[in-house]
Amino acid sequence: MENQSNSKQNQQEHTFTEGLSFEGFRQIMKKFANDRDWNQYHTPRNLLLAFTGEVGELCELFQWKGEVSEGLPEFSEEEKIRVGEEMADCLAYLTRLADQCKIDLTQAILRKMEMNAKKYPVEKCKGKSDKYTSYQEMKEQPQGENQQNQQEQLNIQQQQPEQKIE
Amino acid sequence: MENQSNSKQNQQEHTFTEGLSFEGFRQIMKKFANDRDWNQYHTPRNLLLAFTGEVGELCELFQWKGEVSEGLPEFSEEEKIRVGEEMADCLAYLTRLADQCKIDLTQAILRKMEMNAKKYPVEKCKGKSDKYTSYQEMKEQPQGENQQNQQEQLNIQQQQPEQKIE
Amino acid sequence: MENQSNSKQNQQEHTFTEGLSFEGFRQIMKKFANDRDWNQYHTPRNLLLAFTGEVGELCELFQWKGEVSEGLPEFSEEEKIRVGEEMADCLAYLTRLADQCKIDLTQAILRKMEMNAKKYPVEKCKGKSDKYTSYQEMKEQPQGENQQNQQEQLNIQQQQPEQKIE
Amino acid sequence: MENQSNSKQNQQEHTFTEGLSFEGFRQIMKKFANDRDWNQYHTPRNLLLAFTGEVGELCELFQWKGEVSEGLPEFSEEEKIRVGEEMADCLAYLTRLADQCKIDLTQAILRKMEMNAKKYPVEKCKGKSDKYTSYQEMKEQPQGENQQNQQEQLNIQQQQPEQKIE
Repeated sequence: MENQSNSKQNQQEHTFTEGLSFEGFRQIMKKFANDRDWNQYHTPRNLLLAFTGEVGELCELFQWKGEVSEGLPEFSEEEKIRVGEEMADCLAYLTRLADQCKIDLTQAILRKMEMNAKKYPVEKCKGKSDKYTSYQEMKEQPQGENQQNQQEQLNIQQQQPEQKIE
Repeated sequence: MENQSNSKQNQQEHTFTEGLSFEGFRQIMKKFANDRDWNQYHTPRNLLLAFTGEVGELCELFQWKGEVSEGLPEFSEEEKIRVGEEMADCLAYLTRLADQCKIDLTQAILRKMEMNAKKYPVEKCKGKSDKYTSYQEMKEQPQGENQQNQQEQLNIQQQQPEQKIE
Repeated sequence: MENQSNSKQNQQEHTFTEGLSFEGFRQIMKKFANDRDWNQYHTPRNLLLAFTGEVGELCELFQWKGEVSEGLPEFSEEEKIRVGEEMADCLAYLTRLADQCKIDLTQAILRKMEMNAKKYPVEKCKGKSDKYTSYQEMKEQPQGENQQNQQEQLNIQQQQPEQKIE
Repeated sequence: MENQSNSKQNQQEHTFTEGLSFEGFRQIMKKFANDRDWNQYHTPRNLLLAFTGEVGELCELFQWKGEVSEGLPEFSEEEKIRVGEEMADCLAYLTRLADQCKIDLTQAILRKMEMNAKKYPVEKCKGKSDKYTSYQEMKEQPQGENQQNQQEQLNIQQQQPEQKIE
């Protein structure tokens, strides 16, 4: 009994802290820029280059490591914190970029995952790396999806009362 | 009077649809990979290279455009959809990467924004690009922040029922 | 007369200093790594990530600049030196990567330019940006080219007898 | 005896074909753009984004491979050709970028390697990965180096009389 619950704890899935949405983070970033009067520098291509700069910094943390394992046991605690910081920087600029481009990032994510779900049906792709390696080809044609259906398939539950997605 | 309210409408802030959190997206991506038995391919460096690949594709959409404006009026509707899709791909791989590295992306974002808020106090930075251009230097030393305090300062409230931030 | 020669001088084409070949640089980099016993760290994916890291640093130098002009008049002398350094770092890792992958970079360049010359015939492409914007689609199918022919067309002469640099 | 010479042959160093210099490639790329009247699109940031796009495509070729070995034995012949093509694309845009920025790429490379040689003296760095991992920190301060001296140390000889390609 105890063992069972222990082993359950051990294999407990890693999660992100709840409570921050893409829209919530957009608001934080927007306010941060507004407060400092920085929107004037936040043109789309300036932000895109800032984003690629952060991506480069994230890559640098992995550059001499050889293959690394799930959970980064090969990294020191300080290095793991750095990884999180660089990820945060990537997200900050990508979020600002989407905001300044007036792209609805939430909708873009949901639509794209729906496209992926159709392109990679579970029954055909399960455990097949050959199929999977063509994952990279999967983003050609934009489609106008039925988003209701999409949310059902992807099991997105609306946090209520907050509902509306469209 | 009417004009005023019109102009208010026109300058209405662009928002992302609410209802999707970083943790929610992590779950979607995790389930997507689990269902297809793809975790075996999702090693940290595989995901990192997949992420950089998507970043490259996002860059390609902006490469021959010259400077572009807020809202991307220079892009066709189809191009804007492509931009959203590539952003979604970037986010998908970054989210998977954080998950497989067992990084708490939400906490990483909140900590980093707190560090930024300290480094760029409003009164000193407002409208100063010279200060701002040193933004890129701002991610050297990892710090163990008081996260409670951080969330208070940034006004991040845990979920329910989606209290407005601005 | 004088004016003419002056104006000719002014419009003199920018050149790189001659005397360093791709193979020569490969040798320099190889020796540098050998002398320090660093080949053990120079696995393909380590080098690829180091390369992307340097690309990010190059991007950072352009990130808050808005559109910049030919010759970078908007940059300080120090900034221009930094740009050259980051470009050098990019080239150093790309060269090491090609070497460790046993790719013949010179042949790869010549083949690719030949493919481009066929894909973008002068008469069809001249001054057409619409054609040009599809430049990014031009690298799909590998081809086995006649390299002799290719070098004739591109006027690459082999330097005999291949002066050693080390 | 025979074995010895055989084993020497087997361990023959991989080389790039000689005969193409950085300046020679600059000329090829310049002529290619001139012939098509494409300089108008080749602004620094357009080229920088095109470069990052190609870097992303190079990364994609390595993304699901796990760690790969020297010489890429895990890649098919076709995949290796693709790798060479993407490297060529990276080099093409980086070369155009340096040209349009009026950076002397050859000098930048030589200066940077000289800086690296000073920063990483053989006797201190040999086989030490801990030293090596700080390689990424080595590009902070621009310096005005004695280039004569530098070229002597690196044994770069100037090829006179600089055979013209165009």
